[in-house]
Amino acid sequence: MVIGHECAGIIEEVGSDVKTLVPGDRVALEPGISCWRCDYCKEGRYNLCPDMKFFATPPVHGSLANQVVHPADLCFKLPDNVSLEEGAMCEPLSVGVHACRRANVGPETNVLVMGAGPIGLVTMLAARAFGAPRIVIVDVDDHRLSVAKDLGADDIIKVSTDMKDIPEEVALIQKAMATAIDVSFDCAGFNKTMSTALDATRSGGKVCLVGMGHNEMTVPLTPAAAREVDVIGIFRYKNTWPLCLEFLRSGKIDVKPLITHRFGFSQKEVEDAFETSARGGNAIKVMFNL
Amino acid sequence: MVIGHECAGIIEEVGSDVKTLVPGDRVALEPGISCWRCDYCKEGRYNLCPDMKFFATPPVHGSLANQVVHPADLCFKLPDNVSLEEGAMCEPLSVGVHACRRANVGPETNVLVMGAGPIGLVTMLAARAFGAPRIVIVDVDDHRLSVAKDLGADDIIKVSTDMKDIPEEVALIQKAMATAIDVSFDCAGFNKTMSTALDATRSGGKVCLVGMGHNEMTVPLTPAAAREVDVIGIFRYKNTWPLCLEFLRSGKIDVKPLITHRFGFSQKEVEDAFETSARGGNAIKVMFNL
Amino acid sequence: MVIGHECAGIIEEVGSDVKTLVPGDRVALEPGISCWRCDYCKEGRYNLCPDMKFFATPPVHGSLANQVVHPADLCFKLPDNVSLEEGAMCEPLSVGVHACRRANVGPETNVLVMGAGPIGLVTMLAARAFGAPRIVIVDVDDHRLSVAKDLGADDIIKVSTDMKDIPEEVALIQKAMATAIDVSFDCAGFNKTMSTALDATRSGGKVCLVGMGHNEMTVPLTPAAAREVDVIGIFRYKNTWPLCLEFLRSGKIDVKPLITHRFGFSQKEVEDAFETSARGGNAIKVMFNL
Amino acid sequence: MVIGHECAGIIEEVGSDVKTLVPGDRVALEPGISCWRCDYCKEGRYNLCPDMKFFATPPVHGSLANQVVHPADLCFKLPDNVSLEEGAMCEPLSVGVHACRRANVGPETNVLVMGAGPIGLVTMLAARAFGAPRIVIVDVDDHRLSVAKDLGADDIIKVSTDMKDIPEEVALIQKAMATAIDVSFDCAGFNKTMSTALDATRSGGKVCLVGMGHNEMTVPLTPAAAREVDVIGIFRYKNTWPLCLEFLRSGKIDVKPLITHRFGFSQKEVEDAFETSARGGNAIKVMFNL
Repeated sequence: MVIGHECAGIIEEVGSDVKTLVPGDRVALEPGISCWRCDYCKEGRYNLCPDMKFFATPPVHGSLANQVVHPADLCFKLPDNVSLEEGAMCEPLSVGVHACRRANVGPETNVLVMGAGPIGLVTMLAARAFGAPRIVIVDVDDHRLSVAKDLGADDIIKVSTDMKDIPEEVALIQKAMATAIDVSFDCAGFNKTMSTALDATRSGGKVCLVGMGHNEMTVPLTPAAAREVDVIGIFRYKNTWPLCLEFLRSGKIDVKPLITHRFGFSQKEVEDAFETSARGGNAIKVMFNL
Repeated sequence: MVIGHECAGIIEEVGSDVKTLVPGDRVALEPGISCWRCDYCKEGRYNLCPDMKFFATPPVHGSLANQVVHPADLCFKLPDNVSLEEGAMCEPLSVGVHACRRANVGPETNVLVMGAGPIGLVTMLAARAFGAPRIVIVDVDDHRLSVAKDLGADDIIKVSTDMKDIPEEVALIQKAMATAIDVSFDCAGFNKTMSTALDATRSGGKVCLVGMGHNEMTVPLTPAAAREVDVIGIFRYKNTWPLCLEFLRSGKIDVKPLITHRFGFSQKEVEDAFETSARGGNAIKVMFNL
Repeated sequence: MVIGHECAGIIEEVGSDVKTLVPGDRVALEPGISCWRCDYCKEGRYNLCPDMKFFATPPVHGSLANQVVHPADLCFKLPDNVSLEEGAMCEPLSVGVHACRRANVGPETNVLVMGAGPIGLVTMLAARAFGAPRIVIVDVDDHRLSVAKDLGADDIIKVSTDMKDIPEEVALIQKAMATAIDVSFDCAGFNKTMSTALDATRSGGKVCLVGMGHNEMTVPLTPAAAREVDVIGIFRYKNTWPLCLEFLRSGKIDVKPLITHRFGFSQKEVEDAFETSARGGNAIKVMFNL
Repeated sequence: MVIGHECAGIIEEVGSDVKTLVPGDRVALEPGISCWRCDYCKEGRYNLCPDMKFFATPPVHGSLANQVVHPADLCFKLPDNVSLEEGAMCEPLSVGVHACRRANVGPETNVLVMGAGPIGLVTMLAARAFGAPRIVIVDVDDHRLSVAKDLGADDIIKVSTDMKDIPEEVALIQKAMATAIDVSFDCAGFNKTMSTALDATRSGGKVCLVGMGHNEMTVPLTPAAAREVDVIGIFRYKNTWPLCLEFLRSGKIDVKPLITHRFGFSQKEVEDAFETSARGGNAIKVMFNL
């Protein structure tokens, strides 16, 4: 099966009913085709559609291909100053944008991000673009934290993987924030990151679970709930492409530093690309260019 | 220290600035006095006020007394057809009302209640009064379930305390509901009840954690979050007395069946009352009458 | 052009992809087919879709016909205890349901309805089903008011058409409500009804403009806005059929008294029906039966 | 009576219970003292409190004085890089912030502002700080428009006072916006500005009425409501000082260009100040310094 669901490309051909696109247009592709018949679709939560057809989700092939056929309303024209590479980044960025929307981030929301991997970074960038005045980001890895700092984190905190350190680390995080933490994004999804987020967030705040490290979680859910800290889930995204493109166009978000490696589309290069990505190291996003 | 925080009484004396009450008025008392200076109070979430003075929360004495001094704006006049006993029931009922408000229960919300103890029952009654068309309630105890059925549950499900039974019980619950479960209230707060609630609730629904059985919880939080099932916490209540009294006045809620035992205020009777309550058995709410 | 957009019927034939309906099923029809490609559709506000195809809105024919072809997802199966006639009433009832949703009516919302015509009546019935504890309805016509009273209005107020009477009538309305008016529905839409609604509604409340008597309006909008009374508009409805059918099934709403006249489908009877409806008088809803 | 309600100053003395302030602290003053006993206060809408005591609202004296006594929780400490003058600007800026909050302005909200007077300008600055990607501002006066342009408007449109020009001007405004207008702020409040705003705003958008030029308004309210354009009212503000100070501290908003004139506090200078302000001309905000 063909994989891949983050992509942008150039229109080659359009159907006869398509009025909004012409061959040659540069577009970013939203990868999911929902049914528009179920309650979720009709209520504006199409990301929860049980009949979603999604790139690279069996039995649907992905977009790592020279050509794909895709509905016109899921192909979003790139502004002139946004490259195809940046267009492809709308997909991961959409995760951050959707998380910020669900957590209602705005100019009064001080934000904690647990995890400085690709999803943590796009969530941080999105939170800033939604106006978050202060963002603290936490990770176990120095290099990731230094990237986060370069990308605009107000403060970075290095933590351990030991559950016993949680109280001390929560204190460090809260001191670094210097004000109440309104929303925490757990972009790792482990017992420790979620426990830290639940404890660190102010009463009445929100913890948004974005990462999916652990399936079953052992966390202090009751004391958090008893302070009306809500746990907000997210699944993919909806209606995010236009906003992502506006963020890229206006420069409110710059995703270029996240693209650390580029490969061509030969057999050899594709193999190299996957090795690079699997190796981790300094790779954030590995991009294929036709 | 004096305990007690569910009470109603008759006004004996009012301060010179009090215009809304006169001696002889029958009133229900909201037990918490918040600071009205902090951000929570000013934003309308006074239940989260860190400086709350609350009956029977040290160092503040409770209301199990012949007389208490209380702010006039926290004394709510009883409608003529609402008794002092029913007025005292505004306190536990407020928990259910606050939970329903936070979970946004309305005429389209099909509701699951985990636990048929006093809090499960008031939550069920509140959900019905907010318009929930279908309510299924779950417990380990036959008597409690039968009380829940008498009080209006559409269906009742008896469950075990064994985690291994969760998949089977979720299937039973979903079959009993016969439609998607929009909101689940966990009024027990154990690993098993919360896991059941998280699994049973539809994508995009809400689980409201009301009970506090376990502190740390081991639950399938990630798969629920990945279906955008949000976990909503609650702490006490706010602005609930007027609505509770309206529900009692109009008959939308009848709390009288919840008052299973009544005692006087002598040394002997007070001791008997606490024994009755501690013994559990068929006692739901044990009331003192002066 | 064929007119008609309130209808129910029996399935004769289904397409090969239709899994939810079989010939013989009794269904109510939602009359609008939206595009599911535009931003409104994708955000869950499909009623605002600019490409909506709607029964009897040129160039689309209406449903006053022996047979219509309609998408399966807009055909809602009737519960056994709901008649075809009642099913057809889902359409006007949907207007009331959508208005109540947009105005956020619930068990704490005291409601004023301006106008006791068909739309005023369905709005009143919907508000009650959403839990409104107290509803006052206003009209210029004694018969309409008496119907409203029979259908459950808590109080009725007869008013004039003279603007000069507004202050006095607002006082009467507020006295009849006996508590603050949280939401007013203007189901007439004239300068006088809207002015009355704006003046009568409490600070921070809402006036929902449902009727469309006047196009341009001369009303005291500024003093209302300066009390944060919001004016909420509505256009048709969305996702209302399942809730309407649940209201009818459960008996929370009884629309049968609104069906005052019935006609067959012969040339002569159709003419009589339109004359009856145009004459007004005691006619509320005039129904055709095949 | 003493007038004035926009002010900042230096703490001279604090009550014995005040823990958050000490003499010498520089603070901005929120001018209204609400009752904290009524429903509005308890629900977080204290700006609607009917018992509000507000600077310069009879019988309460204003703040144009050498000294005022004010509750500590309404005195907000200025960040080091925010001057007393800027602190005093929190009051008008709060109007814009409150309007943006009520209209839910964010990074996806394209904004039209009718009127480039002081309130139009602070609303524009607030909308930008809330993330509005594109703002078009409209006025009858070239100088005001040029100030608006300098302060960051994306486009400015000069209009007439003639109602007949509305269709043409709406077309110009929509062309200048180049995308749908999501929220319009009418910061003038005349028949013409409100009519223009109602017509120009997209279906499902909001018009927020901030200015109060006309009391009774003659406007095309029905066609706007029939496109679900809601009219949102505002009254003063609530909980805005901390956010205003954060906007000033971070530089997201610069109010210094709005302070066009400065006067001392002698008899002669006070008279000059009022003359300057009354004359209009290029004066936006006229400031007194002790």
